[in-house]
This record gives sequence, structure tokens and C-alpha cells, in this order.
Amino acid sequence: MPFIDFYKLDKVQAYEGITGHIAHSDKLTFARFRIEKDTVLPEHAHPHEQWTHLLEGRLEFTIGNETQVLTPGTVAHVPSDISHKVKALTECHILDCFNPVREEFMNLEAID
Amino acid sequence: MPFIDFYKLDKVQAYEGITGHIAHSDKLTFARFRIEKDTVLPEHAHPHEQWTHLLEGRLEFTIGNETQVLTPGTVAHVPSDISHKVKALTECHILDCFNPVREEFMNLEAID
Repeated sequence: MPFIDFYKLDKVQAYEGITGHIAHSDKLTFARFRIEKDTVLPEHAHPHEQWTHLLEGRLEFTIGNETQVLTPGTVAHVPSDISHKVKALTECHILDCFNPVREEFMNLEAID
Repeated sequence: MPFIDFYKLDKVQAYEGITGHIAHSDKLTFARFRIEKDTVLPEHAHPHEQWTHLLEGRLEFTIGNETQVLTPGTVAHVPSDISHKVKALTECHILDCFNPVREEFMNLEAID
């Protein structure tokens, strides 16, 4: 599938308050997520390197003991196995990239 | 550097008509590029897997012998070593991801 229209993919819920569309290659996972205002994703870690590109909104992002509010044009880079958490100060739209593939995101049930 | 503001990075020119800001981890390269209208990037290939996310504009993208006009929300996925070319039908803003790192993008001179 060389071309992908994210909005034609099944809509899934990754976490409570975090929904969107996810695509994978052999090595990478990309997700376009909408995060509801006031959503909190508690501290967690995973072996996957993560890049969170903020497209719209204001997202409080903590990596280790460093916190910053992401605005459009900024990105958070979470190295492998580093704890991180987020809080949506507004409704947010993000583009996430994970390396390697987030296998637990491959079989989420479609919603809506 | 867990947090990156792309617009505070040096502005570089990757190709004629294609300028922007580039960040790297050990394994991935991300670039936010502005492509001038009517820019043509001729057919080429590289060993890096590439994902081109269209943020704004209309970008004619050819992968192998398949062509599609990317619009916001769509993405082109170019597997390793597959020929591809682009033509900007309007000014475009894209987010490119490459795996592994595009080393030739690491030492581009700042412009402006």
C-alpha cells in the first residue's frame, strides 16, 4: 500500500480519550491521534523509540523529569524505555511515530 | 534533546525548491519541508524507507509506476530502494520520515 489516506483507515481507540488512525510498515508505526482536552496518559515506558509531532493544540509532555508544553511545530522524542506521560491542555492532534512497530496497535477494534 | 522546536533549527535546502528543518535520532530522520509550487524532484531511489506525510497543499507523488496526488491527511510510503518522484502542484508542507538516518542531510549548510 504505497499510498495511505489516514481518514479512510478504521478509527480506533488507543487509550481512553485518544482515538485515531494507525498505519504500519515492517519497521515503523505511524498514528494520527486526536486527544480529548484534559486527557491524562499516566507515566509509562516501552522499548519503542517514539516521536510525537504536535499538529494542533497544546500538549503537556513529560520525558523523564523534563516537562514542556508542545505547540504546533514542536516534537517530543522519547528514546527507548524512557518513562513519559502526557496531559492535553486543549484538544490536540498529533502524529506519532514508533520504531519498531507497536504490535499491540495492530489489532485494535474499530470504533464508531 | 527530548524536545525539538523545528522552527528554531537551522533552515536548510535539501534540493532546489525544497527547504526546511531536519532532526535526527540514532535511527530516524524527520524533516519538515516547504516545497515551492512547480518544484519537480526527478525519479530517484535510496536504501532508506521513507514516509511523506502531506500537511498542506497538493503533491503529485509517483512510486514505481503508481501516481497519486497527496492531500492533507494522506501519506506516501516508499519502501527501501524503490524509485519515486514528486511534483508540487501547489506550495506544499510535508513531514518526511526516513529510516535509517539520512546521513547526507546531517551536514547541510544553513541558509537565510
